Order: sequence, then structure tokens, then C-alpha cells
Amino acid sequence: MDAVQSPVIPVVADLIGETPGTISLGQGVVCYGPPEAALRNVMAHRGDLGQFYSPVEGIPELAGVLVRKLADENRINIGTERRVVVTAGANMGFLNALFAITDPGAEVILPTPYYFNHEMAVRMLNCVPVCVPTDHRFQVDAGAIAAAMTERTAAVVTISPNNPSGAVYPEQSLRAVNALCRERGAYHISDEAYEYFVYGDQQHFSPAAIDTSLEHTISLFSLSKAYGFSSWRIGYMIIPAHLFENIRKVQDTNLICPPLASQYAAIGALQAGRGYCDANIRQIVRNREFVLNELAKLRRITGEVHSDGALYAFPRLDTTLSDMQLVERLIREFRIATIPGSAFGMEDSCYLRVSYGALDESTLEEGMHRLVGGLNAIFTE
Amino acid sequence: MDAVQSPVIPVVADLIGETPGTISLGQGVVCYGPPEAALRNVMAHRGDLGQFYSPVEGIPELAGVLVRKLADENRINIGTERRVVVTAGANMGFLNALFAITDPGAEVILPTPYYFNHEMAVRMLNCVPVCVPTDHRFQVDAGAIAAAMTERTAAVVTISPNNPSGAVYPEQSLRAVNALCRERGAYHISDEAYEYFVYGDQQHFSPAAIDTSLEHTISLFSLSKAYGFSSWRIGYMIIPAHLFENIRKVQDTNLICPPLASQYAAIGALQAGRGYCDANIRQIVRNREFVLNELAKLRRITGEVHSDGALYAFPRLDTTLSDMQLVERLIREFRIATIPGSAFGMEDSCYLRVSYGALDESTLEEGMHRLVGGLNAIFTE
Repeated sequence: MDAVQSPVIPVVADLIGETPGTISLGQGVVCYGPPEAALRNVMAHRGDLGQFYSPVEGIPELAGVLVRKLADENRINIGTERRVVVTAGANMGFLNALFAITDPGAEVILPTPYYFNHEMAVRMLNCVPVCVPTDHRFQVDAGAIAAAMTERTAAVVTISPNNPSGAVYPEQSLRAVNALCRERGAYHISDEAYEYFVYGDQQHFSPAAIDTSLEHTISLFSLSKAYGFSSWRIGYMIIPAHLFENIRKVQDTNLICPPLASQYAAIGALQAGRGYCDANIRQIVRNREFVLNELAKLRRITGEVHSDGALYAFPRLDTTLSDMQLVERLIREFRIATIPGSAFGMEDSCYLRVSYGALDESTLEEGMHRLVGGLNAIFTE
Repeated sequence: MDAVQSPVIPVVADLIGETPGTISLGQGVVCYGPPEAALRNVMAHRGDLGQFYSPVEGIPELAGVLVRKLADENRINIGTERRVVVTAGANMGFLNALFAITDPGAEVILPTPYYFNHEMAVRMLNCVPVCVPTDHRFQVDAGAIAAAMTERTAAVVTISPNNPSGAVYPEQSLRAVNALCRERGAYHISDEAYEYFVYGDQQHFSPAAIDTSLEHTISLFSLSKAYGFSSWRIGYMIIPAHLFENIRKVQDTNLICPPLASQYAAIGALQAGRGYCDANIRQIVRNREFVLNELAKLRRITGEVHSDGALYAFPRLDTTLSDMQLVERLIREFRIATIPGSAFGMEDSCYLRVSYGALDESTLEEGMHRLVGGLNAIFTE
């Protein structure tokens, strides 16, 4: 395999490393950790953390908690025709799905901006990422997706709430994509890692709640963001039962089973429940408000900037500088780091991903001060 | 992807499930869990188990412990031209390696009997498993491997101590394979998950200790067996530095990072060290003695049976029954489970894998009583 992934992220990491005191608006994580119930439940099962593997798809107790969560919060009925597979993070869920539903040369439709690990996974399996632009508000256009589909299309991927754009797709759009996939014999892979991160009057919608979605919908979830759980590596996928044997084999060959301590931690976290997440997300809501207000000061450079969900704003900057040039100058001259849009497949214009989930209030304040100041300085040269 | 893996293992699992009271000689695990230092070190770092990812390749503290272990025990010098990558188990190390060094259609040489997850991984990446028989003592034959190599050969895989055969490859054989790979421009993937499980006067040898091995040798290790650590999912791979960026990208796309709690547990376990493992392996040494003595009672059916390493004996039975027929009768009629050789690519004769690592003395005694009694009964019909 050749090095196919965008080299952008490591370059940014190196720049930060070379520039002491840089504040990073690049990290796609939250500013809080898991509930104490997570580690407590690990300790309650310390006697089990030994020489035995768990089932490939995760322990039944965790699946049971997830089945109830999916019914209550997502209106997804697992029943007998769907299965829950616990993964070591939602990235692994995506890779599992591709292994199960593609052969080399298959096409996978990625609305742009895409999540770079999705694009990388598609290339790793020698499939073809087919990029379909979203509109000026980063909304998917089912017509454009339909026009890009061929008989080689194995799947259409949607991420809502979206990394990196912060868009939230309305139910109607997701229904249109899901119906399109059904008609054309493709899978709809719905990445919902940021499901709890919706703002204002936005609502998260799970395509697997659609009556006719059963056979062709693969849903990916994660505890990483909602529960401050990244270090534990627990996600889960909802799949039609007909994919279960293949996905079990794939995950067995890759992982054998999700780490058992992490599974117990997940049960503890899920028992603390959504209330824990929502209470912590209040800080992120405040961060978002602040970031959007700060970005509004750059309106002549960025136009209006929105962020309806996830942890991101994704301003487009009216400049002839490349995004990487801009990111480099912002780090070197102003000690503020963002991720350039080219990491997400946006090559034609200059975009920056600004993450507002990870920082405490005062660091975020200083960071936005540097970002706004830096961009104003660069754009008035 | 079609369902390509041997359906044998799930069939055996189902048979066991249908036959209450069955004793399993099928489990490839040990009879002890990790040292207490493992969980203690997790708790000592409880404050870190939050919303942040670890480096893709694992935390430096764990790498440091592993570098010293590799120098002291394996005579592998990491230096600057090799890298250690912590994985979520050695299966993932194998998959990482294949992603990094193959394109579809590449050939991977697997001495038979093979480890079924290796064969599955090769097929998952649309590569071609090229099976090369071992000799009557399950030893690799460098000449046969040389004859099977083509310009499409990406790698030769060796597993020593071997799952499922229990063979241990002498230094001389591994040097021959390693030299052959170097000459032919192929990688040598050396799976050493069972390195501590060698018996009698056998010695484990790591091909990466060879002076000329640097550029083309990939070594896979695991804490699962030695430290009773399966549930934590920690392995590690030693790779030439030129593969590091690609393997980092692959693992990032798959896992992002090994679970951090498991990494801390691994540090704790490795600080307890090999002495902990060796003390526990004494029970497995006794189990092995007992199993070989029992199998000796079947000499007219199996010939002489050896097990120089790992957790397995792999007798060949002189019968016209298929291995699956035999396994099914042993479970249904005698409530004793083994794994049929066809799971490991041995289709021409009837082999059974007998695992002696997992059971306590009295259960093993009863299990071998059933196995010997059952086979004697079936073979005197």
C-alpha cells in the first residue's frame, strides 16, 4: 500500500510541536471525561478481566443496554433482523462495514467535506471514494448524490452532525438519501458519533428509524465524544442481520473482541446516561456561542459562519492563500492551530476547521483572540 | 466480501452449546489471569482515562518498557531504524502489516497448518494465501517455501512456537527463512505470540535478532497468552522504520489508538515481568506432560505426538472419518471438544487440535479421560 492519506494532519502536528505555546483549535474531542460510574463498573468486574476473550460482537450485557438506548433515543428497533456489534471505536465500525459490503473497485460516495478517516478506509480497501459536494450550508443534495451513483456504488456515507462542517442534516434529507440507497441497491452508512451535539432547534435523526431502512442501513455510534470516552475505544454499529456473520469474521480477524474493561466502562457510562452528557455539553454550547460570536467579527473574510452540530465551525476564507499556508502562518506567527480544509477533501477554496469542544473557557477565549487577530492581520496586509 | 473463513469454528461452538457438560480442549488461552500490578497501574492513572486519544502507536512509556524487554529477552535492538507499534492484539498487528506491504493479488506464504485468522486476513485484503506444507514434525522447509515463492510473494509467515501444531522452529530454520525473504525481496512476518511457551530444551528465537533482518522483518508479539491478558487486547509489532508512517495511518484509520487503560495495564504487567509468566507456565508444563502421556495411549491411532511449544498438541488420526465427523462424535457421544484440523487448512488427513493451556488439573484429567476413551471406542468399532 502506498501512503495515500492526506499528509496534512501530521504536518500541522509538527508545526504545533515546533511552536511552543500554541493553542490548538484542532482537537476533535470534548472538554470532559467519563462519569465515575465507568471506572467503578470496571472495578466491579475486576475478576473478569483475565485470560478470556469476550464475544466478538461484545458482551450481551452491553448489547442489552445499547438496545434499550437505541429504542428510547433513536427510535431504532433492533428486534431480530438487526444486530448490535460493539467495536473499538466508530472508525473500526466503518472499516468493518466496508470489508463486509465492498470488493476492490467498488465506489463509496462521500459528501464533501468528508471525514478523512472515511476516505482513507475506502482507499485502504482499494475502493474508490466518489466525492459529492454539499451546498453552501454543507447540506447534502440527494439529487447530486443520485447523479454520482453508478452500478458500482456500494454505499453512500452521511455524517450528521457533521465532522468537519458542523452541519446537521434534517430528517427529510436523510430520508431522501436512505430511499435513494434502497432504490439503487446501495448501503446507507450513517455515522452518528456526534448525535448528542445538536444546537438551537436542530434535531438529530437516525436513518435506521425509517421503516424501510432495515436491509441496507448501517449506523455507526461512538461513546468517544458524548461520554468523554475516547481513550477507552468503544463504539457500536447497528447492522442488518444478514451482514452479521461477515462482520463478526472481519472483527474477529482484526480485533478478536473489544477490550473487556472498556466494555464494562461503557456499561457504567451508559447507566449514568444521557443526562451526564447533556450536563457537560452545556459548556460546549457556551463555547460554540462564543466561537460563533468571535467568528462574526471576521464576516468580511468568511461570510456568515454556522455550526448547528458536532464540535466544529468550518469557515471558508476569501483568499488566494492556500489553506496550508494560512494554517502555517497562524501557527508560526500567532500560535493558534486549526485544521486546513484540504484534510477533508476541500481543495478548491480555503477552509479552516475550528474545533470548540476541547478547551476550557479561558483558553478558548485566548485562542479565539489569536485566531481573529491573526486572520485580521493577515487579511489586511 | 463473501464469507470466506472456514465455518468450522462456529460449528464446533454450536455443537458445544447443544451438548451440556462438554469439556472443551478447544480454547487457546491459559489458565491464569494478569498480575495484580496490571489493574493497579490502571488505577494509578485513572485521571488520564478520559477524552483524549493516546498516540496511534501507543504511549511512549509502554514503548520504553517494550524496547527494554525486546533487548533483554529477544536480542532485538530497536535503535532508530525499527519502531514498536502497540496494537489491540497480535491479530491487528498482522492485519496492519498486510495493509502496509500488500496490494490485491499479492501472495502470502503460509506454512500449513496455518493460523486461521492469518488466512482470513490475507483473503480479506484480496491477497492470495499460498499454503506450503510443513514436514512430519510440522517443521518449515525453506526449500519448499523457496519453491513456492514468485515475484508476487509479498511475505512469508512463520509462527513459532506454533498454533496449532505446537512445533518450535529452531534458530537455523528461522535464519534460513529470513535469508530467503531478504534474497527474494519479501517480508518475513514472524508471529511470536507464544514466545514464552517452549518446553524441554527448546529455545525461542526471534528472527529480528538477525543482523541482516532489519529491512524486511516484521515481528508480532502479544501479552494475551503470556500474561493471561486476552481480555485487555494488547499486542505489539516491531517494524522497520520505513513502514512506520503507513502502519500509523492504517492503525489510525482502524483503531485511532490502543485503549489507554489496556496500555497502562500492560505496563503494570510487564513490570511484574517474565517471572510472573514463568511461575504460571509451570502449571501448563504439567498439563502438557499429562496430555502427552495420555495421548501416548493412543499411539496405534495417532503415532507419536509431540508438543514442543505453545498450548497445543496436534495429533493426526489414522481414519477415513473426516475431522469434522470425528469432532462431532466426540462432542455428542463423549462430551469432549477439540478443534478439527481443517480449521487450520489441513484438509487431506484427519487432525485434531488439543489445547492444554486453559483447564485446571482435574478438568483436564476428566477431559483427557473422555478424549482417550472416546477415540479408543470410535476406533475399535
